[in-house]
Amino acid sequence: MISKKMEFFVASGSAIRAMFEEGKQMAAVYGAENVCDFSLGNPNLPTPAAVKDAIIQILDQVEPVELHGYMNNSGFADVREDIARSINKKFDTAFSGENIVMTVGAAGGLNVILKTLLNPHDQIMVFAPYFGEYRSYAINYDADFAVVPASIPFFQPNLEQFEKMLNPKTKVVILNSPNNPTGVIYTKETIAELAEILYRKQKEFNTEIYIVSDEPYRELVYKDMEVPYITKYYDNTVVVYSYSKSLSLAGERIGYLVIPNTISDFDMVIASANIATRILGYVNAPSLMQKTVAKCLDSQIDIGYYDRNRQALYNGLTNMGYECTYPDGAFYLWMKTPIEDDKLFVGMAKKYQILLVPGTFFGCPGYVRIAYCISPETIITALPKFEALMKEIKE
Amino acid sequence: MISKKMEFFVASGSAIRAMFEEGKQMAAVYGAENVCDFSLGNPNLPTPAAVKDAIIQILDQVEPVELHGYMNNSGFADVREDIARSINKKFDTAFSGENIVMTVGAAGGLNVILKTLLNPHDQIMVFAPYFGEYRSYAINYDADFAVVPASIPFFQPNLEQFEKMLNPKTKVVILNSPNNPTGVIYTKETIAELAEILYRKQKEFNTEIYIVSDEPYRELVYKDMEVPYITKYYDNTVVVYSYSKSLSLAGERIGYLVIPNTISDFDMVIASANIATRILGYVNAPSLMQKTVAKCLDSQIDIGYYDRNRQALYNGLTNMGYECTYPDGAFYLWMKTPIEDDKLFVGMAKKYQILLVPGTFFGCPGYVRIAYCISPETIITALPKFEALMKEIKE
Repeated sequence: MISKKMEFFVASGSAIRAMFEEGKQMAAVYGAENVCDFSLGNPNLPTPAAVKDAIIQILDQVEPVELHGYMNNSGFADVREDIARSINKKFDTAFSGENIVMTVGAAGGLNVILKTLLNPHDQIMVFAPYFGEYRSYAINYDADFAVVPASIPFFQPNLEQFEKMLNPKTKVVILNSPNNPTGVIYTKETIAELAEILYRKQKEFNTEIYIVSDEPYRELVYKDMEVPYITKYYDNTVVVYSYSKSLSLAGERIGYLVIPNTISDFDMVIASANIATRILGYVNAPSLMQKTVAKCLDSQIDIGYYDRNRQALYNGLTNMGYECTYPDGAFYLWMKTPIEDDKLFVGMAKKYQILLVPGTFFGCPGYVRIAYCISPETIITALPKFEALMKEIKE
Repeated sequence: MISKKMEFFVASGSAIRAMFEEGKQMAAVYGAENVCDFSLGNPNLPTPAAVKDAIIQILDQVEPVELHGYMNNSGFADVREDIARSINKKFDTAFSGENIVMTVGAAGGLNVILKTLLNPHDQIMVFAPYFGEYRSYAINYDADFAVVPASIPFFQPNLEQFEKMLNPKTKVVILNSPNNPTGVIYTKETIAELAEILYRKQKEFNTEIYIVSDEPYRELVYKDMEVPYITKYYDNTVVVYSYSKSLSLAGERIGYLVIPNTISDFDMVIASANIATRILGYVNAPSLMQKTVAKCLDSQIDIGYYDRNRQALYNGLTNMGYECTYPDGAFYLWMKTPIEDDKLFVGMAKKYQILLVPGTFFGCPGYVRIAYCISPETIITALPKFEALMKEIKE
């Protein structure tokens, strides 16, 4: 009796559910400490102490009627101003509170802006490998979904293919850097060239093409690599941000959109984003968390922890002969499977109680994603297993 | 450049925005203390102290990685169990945690279940007067929207018309009791008869018709009036609940769905509701607030405060000759406009710095909604203004 669309989502979601279940069953059979679950992008670092301090301070200082009550759907005015100021300081931009819409995490923000922009049969374009949820959103909005093939081995966007594939139906291009699943950061040169192509194609087609830049991993960057701020390269850019990773607040559902004044049809886009929060049913981002993140704009989790995991895993695996993309950001390692069939490889890894996600899930077969937002002990346990797996394959 | 659907919503939302703006301008001209704003359903009572205590206790006791991290999309298992137990105790039901899906407020819950159930052109049926947002949701899901005319003067559902209007396309019937905008509680007898009609029509059409019972005002009830728990009357019922009003947590976006085992296609509905939270972009209800409400299941705001407002306003207005529906619940007074045109009446009231919402917004012209979740001082200020307004009309 459920809707046809949801029937489809339930059916396609069952593969992921099955993976979860398998992990649980493995833990029951082999002991949780022997199962190496690299499948989940769930931060395992505690939120910085500043978050707890901020919550308690806010509870003491802000009247409950204001703190827990409705506000403008876009969020508290002071919070939006504080966030704009912080972005300006970090990225040399010139936003004000009116450019910020507080959202229920990055997923909420993506939905607000996709809901705002897309008519049925408009096209969303993504670069492989891509976060699988983008495809679900496209289906949900009856949008076409076009995948630009991966550029191997560096996994920067494949701009030659991109230019060929752009067409008058393309309305939204989703960027995701630092990237899930590769950990790659799109360079300044890549972004500048991509923007140049889009400006040219907008003119050629006489259309507007929007970049939606999904940036939950912006702060998860190793060795001061620069993550270009896309609004500085391309006018029709909307930035989607979340505190899920930078403050380990994934369950709290708090993030924001940046909608610059340079965007085509700014007033309508802002008005629509405001109403989309209501139409989608969020109404507004959770109020206490809005006030909380505004007090923690200079805090973040201990990136050194993920860095140590990154190096232990990258060095360990490449020494065994696995081919990995060196990750500059996020907490994922992207590995070429030593056999062609990534799903088969994931199945083989399971026999060693290693859980991975096949590249096929990200539109890029022949690879796996290894999430290293896990304990260092799991990596120590996993490495001999990976070695045995490689040995099995070579024999 | 925004989507056609959002263009429509932006255009139709402008009336409500205009009302807000007018309120602000009035306050600037006449002084905020002279403006009597009865237009907003925004709780003005502080959250009970138990909420702050619970938050601090949780911050001290629960590990941040669990507290602020992802959980099952349906919510924390312990929270869902606690809520099920609390419902069972209050309403003599037999739910378990598996029947509960934590949601981003009632609006989030409504969207999860509508997304789950509706195919395009399925029909949603509501009873006038109804909360206007239902219509927006119907449009958003490309559903047909059928309004059963009001039953005057008691505003119980008009069951005679309802029975005639039900048809094979009807998939969802939304109930909202205590009702926004009337404050009326649908009686046991009404619900029993309504259920009987639905059982009969399901059989006649060989379809499934679901009641979606939107209950954010369930606890806002005066003098121990009983609010029937709909799952006990009709198998295909989904209950939508929110803590926005009972704990004055409207900005925190926290509520839940009850999906009983008796519902047709239970497993698929639950599976779909779980995925709908993701597809819609909420992912899960805010995590700290989930744990918080589970610790406050026996707390609620001081209903006596709203009761005093209710009586002051009802008695004051009826003594002047206004015809009002005596509200048994919620914090709205429903008043017949002394002239036929409710929008014109709202315009006249503005000249006295009184802000009301025309019944037309709720599909029921000739009435206005007066929200009394305001300070008693506003009522004292307003009554002479209402009197002057009545005098003007009578002259």
